[in-house]
Amino acid sequence: MNKESKTIRDPIHGDIKLEGLFLDLIDAPEIQRLYDIKQLGFAHLVFPGAHHTRLEHSLGTYYMAFQAGEKLNLDKNEKEIVACAAMLHDIGHGPFSHTLEFILRETIGIDHIDLTEKLIFGEHAIFDPKEKEFIGSPNVFDILNKYAIDQKEIIRLIRGKTNKKPYLSQLLNSSIDVDQLDYLVRDAYYTGVAYGMIDIERFLQTLIINKNKLAVRKKGVGVVENILMARTLMYSSVYFHKTVRIAELMLSKAIEIISDKEPFKFFKMTDAELINELKKMGSFQHEIVTRLKYRTLFKQAYTINESNLDKKSVNLVKRLENIKLRREKEQEFEESLNIPTGHIIIDVPFQELHQAEPRINQTNIIIVDEKETKTLDDYTPVAKAIRLRPIPDWVVMIITDEKYRDIVAKRAEKLLYR
Amino acid sequence: MNKESKTIRDPIHGDIKLEGLFLDLIDAPEIQRLYDIKQLGFAHLVFPGAHHTRLEHSLGTYYMAFQAGEKLNLDKNEKEIVACAAMLHDIGHGPFSHTLEFILRETIGIDHIDLTEKLIFGEHAIFDPKEKEFIGSPNVFDILNKYAIDQKEIIRLIRGKTNKKPYLSQLLNSSIDVDQLDYLVRDAYYTGVAYGMIDIERFLQTLIINKNKLAVRKKGVGVVENILMARTLMYSSVYFHKTVRIAELMLSKAIEIISDKEPFKFFKMTDAELINELKKMGSFQHEIVTRLKYRTLFKQAYTINESNLDKKSVNLVKRLENIKLRREKEQEFEESLNIPTGHIIIDVPFQELHQAEPRINQTNIIIVDEKETKTLDDYTPVAKAIRLRPIPDWVVMIITDEKYRDIVAKRAEKLLYR
Amino acid sequence: MNKESKTIRDPIHGDIKLEGLFLDLIDAPEIQRLYDIKQLGFAHLVFPGAHHTRLEHSLGTYYMAFQAGEKLNLDKNEKEIVACAAMLHDIGHGPFSHTLEFILRETIGIDHIDLTEKLIFGEHAIFDPKEKEFIGSPNVFDILNKYAIDQKEIIRLIRGKTNKKPYLSQLLNSSIDVDQLDYLVRDAYYTGVAYGMIDIERFLQTLIINKNKLAVRKKGVGVVENILMARTLMYSSVYFHKTVRIAELMLSKAIEIISDKEPFKFFKMTDAELINELKKMGSFQHEIVTRLKYRTLFKQAYTINESNLDKKSVNLVKRLENIKLRREKEQEFEESLNIPTGHIIIDVPFQELHQAEPRINQTNIIIVDEKETKTLDDYTPVAKAIRLRPIPDWVVMIITDEKYRDIVAKRAEKLLYR
Amino acid sequence: MNKESKTIRDPIHGDIKLEGLFLDLIDAPEIQRLYDIKQLGFAHLVFPGAHHTRLEHSLGTYYMAFQAGEKLNLDKNEKEIVACAAMLHDIGHGPFSHTLEFILRETIGIDHIDLTEKLIFGEHAIFDPKEKEFIGSPNVFDILNKYAIDQKEIIRLIRGKTNKKPYLSQLLNSSIDVDQLDYLVRDAYYTGVAYGMIDIERFLQTLIINKNKLAVRKKGVGVVENILMARTLMYSSVYFHKTVRIAELMLSKAIEIISDKEPFKFFKMTDAELINELKKMGSFQHEIVTRLKYRTLFKQAYTINESNLDKKSVNLVKRLENIKLRREKEQEFEESLNIPTGHIIIDVPFQELHQAEPRINQTNIIIVDEKETKTLDDYTPVAKAIRLRPIPDWVVMIITDEKYRDIVAKRAEKLLYR
Repeated sequence: MNKESKTIRDPIHGDIKLEGLFLDLIDAPEIQRLYDIKQLGFAHLVFPGAHHTRLEHSLGTYYMAFQAGEKLNLDKNEKEIVACAAMLHDIGHGPFSHTLEFILRETIGIDHIDLTEKLIFGEHAIFDPKEKEFIGSPNVFDILNKYAIDQKEIIRLIRGKTNKKPYLSQLLNSSIDVDQLDYLVRDAYYTGVAYGMIDIERFLQTLIINKNKLAVRKKGVGVVENILMARTLMYSSVYFHKTVRIAELMLSKAIEIISDKEPFKFFKMTDAELINELKKMGSFQHEIVTRLKYRTLFKQAYTINESNLDKKSVNLVKRLENIKLRREKEQEFEESLNIPTGHIIIDVPFQELHQAEPRINQTNIIIVDEKETKTLDDYTPVAKAIRLRPIPDWVVMIITDEKYRDIVAKRAEKLLYR
Repeated sequence: MNKESKTIRDPIHGDIKLEGLFLDLIDAPEIQRLYDIKQLGFAHLVFPGAHHTRLEHSLGTYYMAFQAGEKLNLDKNEKEIVACAAMLHDIGHGPFSHTLEFILRETIGIDHIDLTEKLIFGEHAIFDPKEKEFIGSPNVFDILNKYAIDQKEIIRLIRGKTNKKPYLSQLLNSSIDVDQLDYLVRDAYYTGVAYGMIDIERFLQTLIINKNKLAVRKKGVGVVENILMARTLMYSSVYFHKTVRIAELMLSKAIEIISDKEPFKFFKMTDAELINELKKMGSFQHEIVTRLKYRTLFKQAYTINESNLDKKSVNLVKRLENIKLRREKEQEFEESLNIPTGHIIIDVPFQELHQAEPRINQTNIIIVDEKETKTLDDYTPVAKAIRLRPIPDWVVMIITDEKYRDIVAKRAEKLLYR
Repeated sequence: MNKESKTIRDPIHGDIKLEGLFLDLIDAPEIQRLYDIKQLGFAHLVFPGAHHTRLEHSLGTYYMAFQAGEKLNLDKNEKEIVACAAMLHDIGHGPFSHTLEFILRETIGIDHIDLTEKLIFGEHAIFDPKEKEFIGSPNVFDILNKYAIDQKEIIRLIRGKTNKKPYLSQLLNSSIDVDQLDYLVRDAYYTGVAYGMIDIERFLQTLIINKNKLAVRKKGVGVVENILMARTLMYSSVYFHKTVRIAELMLSKAIEIISDKEPFKFFKMTDAELINELKKMGSFQHEIVTRLKYRTLFKQAYTINESNLDKKSVNLVKRLENIKLRREKEQEFEESLNIPTGHIIIDVPFQELHQAEPRINQTNIIIVDEKETKTLDDYTPVAKAIRLRPIPDWVVMIITDEKYRDIVAKRAEKLLYR
Repeated sequence: MNKESKTIRDPIHGDIKLEGLFLDLIDAPEIQRLYDIKQLGFAHLVFPGAHHTRLEHSLGTYYMAFQAGEKLNLDKNEKEIVACAAMLHDIGHGPFSHTLEFILRETIGIDHIDLTEKLIFGEHAIFDPKEKEFIGSPNVFDILNKYAIDQKEIIRLIRGKTNKKPYLSQLLNSSIDVDQLDYLVRDAYYTGVAYGMIDIERFLQTLIINKNKLAVRKKGVGVVENILMARTLMYSSVYFHKTVRIAELMLSKAIEIISDKEPFKFFKMTDAELINELKKMGSFQHEIVTRLKYRTLFKQAYTINESNLDKKSVNLVKRLENIKLRREKEQEFEESLNIPTGHIIIDVPFQELHQAEPRINQTNIIIVDEKETKTLDDYTPVAKAIRLRPIPDWVVMIITDEKYRDIVAKRAEKLLYR
């Protein structure tokens, strides 16, 4: 059996060829684990095709980084390191991808990039000691050593902090990075929501390096507008779909109320391992896991939308953005209405959206014309408009068990504003 | 919130609208569980996009049954019952779909249709008693009662045994049934292997009822040839891909060696529940589950292909098709070569293929020309050729842990033929 | 041969079924002629796949009108008349579609809707008297009579002037009409430029009639933003692609300088008939036709872009928008630089764009939420931004034969501003 | 304006980049003319999307030849010459592609490859002398000289007659050549008939050179079966669609009865030029051209199908395959039934199919396994079955003006067999 190269069929990019470093990396336990992390958390509860995983997204990002490297005429080493960072950029992702990110950051202060870093530096093992015997491949740290890849540089690229060659980092971390391109097109494919369909070839054609930074040729203005639009529409209709959001809030709550959470413990699990772990915990966790399995979700009892936001509610939202005050308010509801713990969740999504996707505010891309360099806003008013466009359309939402919905709905105003 | 109808976006068929009976069924625990049963077992280990589930296939089959009913001008009741049987035809599927079918049939004598029947007749609950409280929907049996659907007729349709209207049953169980059409197109989409792409619209146009049987208009000869070709190519390249097969054999072995298996216990689990259950069992099960998680698969040590089959090996194959003799031979290998139990698996796939997909031999479709009725073979020699085409190309394969590969390879001939 | 219904395969919408009135209309000479009118004029010179014709667009618009009628629960008569108007809305289109529209409107004062009206009222025959004998089908006027369709109502629908049921007219004439939807998706398909790809099913789901007007449900805001974006990007990159524009300007000039043009004479021709007619005319026409055949196009000698527009040039543009003054200026160039007549063309595209597609300014769509009715601008800032986005990016362009390019480039500023 | 490279968007292959030799060739008058030659003759009368031209097919074949060259690791010169032959292989095609091929071969003894040869050797100009002045590019012969390409080798490659490196010629002329791959996928795209959809990437992966010949790796057996199946289904349902065939027979007849046809005169025209030329000729030509314009086609009056062929009719077919006897028989019909000349056409398609596509019988492809070399028939019975499959399903068809249909139908048997 020839182990020199391997071709994997990806429904998005077609055949992806792997050799050397990349052929080794794909077998590493940190990458293989991504087979069990759904790319879009609970989106399949609304879009039944959305079971795709971080593994294929990692592969796709690797592929696109490599293609972009070719188009930009990067040298062999640059191409290798950016493609390597692309393949590894998500290995620290916890179960259900972004679902638990916010709650774990709030409660134990770490996020998936912290775990990614630990894994790349070999300071942490992704697997259980009992599993080790049956893992046929070295881990990522050892593979990088074998190929003399500088782990620190990989982390700098992933964190968007390379000083020497900003364009390399921007290929993975900017408004026009390949990570985003891959996930938009991939999520569009598996959800069946066409918004994310972007002309990848055309995009790659327009990339250019300008004064060490990643930029876009003037003929690419349309492609970039298209990408920004695709992203905002995918956020509205898929990533912040209300039902998907409710499922995510439920799981987050089940985790949140666990006391003394060990750092990284939850991050390291696969989707299925987390569900199984929760099932064995307290009765609330068992309830939530069963509800998610059979799609018996909490219902929306009260909502303030962008369009009916007044001065009074603006102040309320400001207060509720503080997670501590929000949790206190939830408790108030539970106590006043005699609702068991965990069955009232108040969602104030704005902050979380912007932490999950900071690129949403970065639309000011460098545009290179024959002689001059401007920014996207000089060519089109659309980019700015997209930045100002609200996602999602609710600013506060209260969800609860169906049987409490009516009482919560009736008393919400009063309780919220007291 | 209007609960009268709901539209679900399917990447294959587009928007699928559900009302009444079907809106209730989609929420039933038996259907919701299918979210956690992968359509293609371990195919994602080779085709990383193949994480789609029985839920969306059930939805797709429902949709196609309904469309076919429209094209055939079936009456309202006929359309309803065939679409209902279509939606329910897979509710008894065990974890990883067909993967464990063979071993459970051999060892405890039941298959997924038996469980389907029990569920439809309300003789069995899909869920754990502890889960019941958090399931917001009635089960399938009760929903069918509510809408006065005859459960027995549903089962007859699923088993292909309706006497009154054979065409209804054939819509779900024949060489040109909609179950197959949906899975071919769906699997092609998620694996990225284009072979399964069939022109569904064109197919539906050519259906006709002839003397109470499902038939195809003469202009549909090409479509049918295309379907048969698509099926055989998908079997060769996806369903019986060698690596996928190895993973399936490993999991089957882990189940097989469990003594006193309770009927339906394994069938009722989800993919993740089975994996978790096995992890807690003996050390061999733990090993297999870990290997599958990290893709540390057994390797092929010896193979007899269709093309190097001689008289001697034909006799061997015949003996090995007997599962008892096959297991004895595996034990012989393990004992002679000092290999721990479960680490030698001999695969003789022919029989299993034909049990898994009996439709593979049914190519003789009725073709209706203006005046006369013939069969597909009267119009094209291709159908028969496809029946004779070998899938897969190996007739015997021995797999084992990588560290025993060389010794097994060296001693295989001798041990097999002694 | 059963003539009761016929199914036509369209690459965009799949199978389109025609019966009764529509089966007759498709055979009418006015519709059959559209086989010979390219949808996008000379776009194939840049996008080699763009040879699609008004015939398939007419068929597609018919299909979409019908589908929209179904979704909106229109009654049988409404569906029929709107689908009929959809199928006929382009029968008056001249050769190369919009290419000659502007010049014919300027010089003889009629446009394609005037001819459409004449044809529908039976006041004009599309064919040559000598051809009549070999046309096997009645013309549109007679077919409409046969089915008792009110020709006046058809025209009102096409002209956007129905008073009784504005929503019917808006289905064909508004920012969210089906004409536009069909052409965007179709042109995207044949050019390979993905911008125009819109989720038609999702769009149709969101349509609603509100106080007798066509409106969109709130959940459709994203779809509508997507359509507006698609349109603006298709205009920039395809319809006003600079090379395509140059070819169109050349053909227009060849027509323009023909003295005493008979009304409708040019409108009635097919693409090929026009080319052939021009070839036999004066030497300038022969030159242009040959240049177009072999793609020996005029070159751009001087351009003022949106981004380098200053006060002085704004005044110039204002003057040049007057076609008479523009023609005088062209003559000045020709005389000063000793360039033969017709070899200098000054393009000031703004006005023409807005005449060709008045919908480009109509983005203020009615949005219907559960209780209230607002407009698109209340929900998103993107619509307005798209209205303000410049298409194309040049405001003045001078083109000429390659051999005069340098001299024109050198002298342009001086000549333009004197 | 940088003329060093140019990227053309093809709906099938995406961006196609042209440089050097190929950038020059694409502008040559011989290639530009192909913009006006429809790839599928009159197929648009049945499949309204099928207006694509030989130009894009030439570009696509060039692209695929280049890709295949890369996969096969051909050297720079080999890649260049095979891609060059690919781009030029159709420059001698007459109007409506294959439509007139048969009749011109029968009546003046030349075919499109003869004209291709003349053009490549510079022995003939594709353009009219009057056009020369406005053609901005040198012709193919001169461009080849400029780049020192051996014209004779190009012709040998196109004719399938290279002795030195058969694999180069086979890339353009064999059962698995890229010409065929491009046209199948392209025709599927524009007709909307999915049969031709082939996985091009997978195909290219499996190519290999074996003993100087083009062969396929064993894993490619499925791809090749898929290609053969696609081809046979596209022939049945598109290329030999009965209505398309009738239109082609009508045009052929209009040409056939022109006495003293000048060699190459008709071959050199574009579709539109031919139509225009015929319109000015005799009244029969004018009739045919008008009928085609308005789709007033001849009707089928009598047919013998493959399935009702008996001994007597076999003999008849054998006689009618002789074109002279067939023409006499047509005359007999016309005289006996008092039908004007040209209004009876007897079609005996078998011979013509096999002249148009000799590859239809070449299915015996070399398959290379790890150690051994076999042929496709050793692996699958499907290839042979496809060779034996009848296309089209009629063996004799008589068509005539609708008004003579009944009388012809009634008298056909008698007249045919007398």
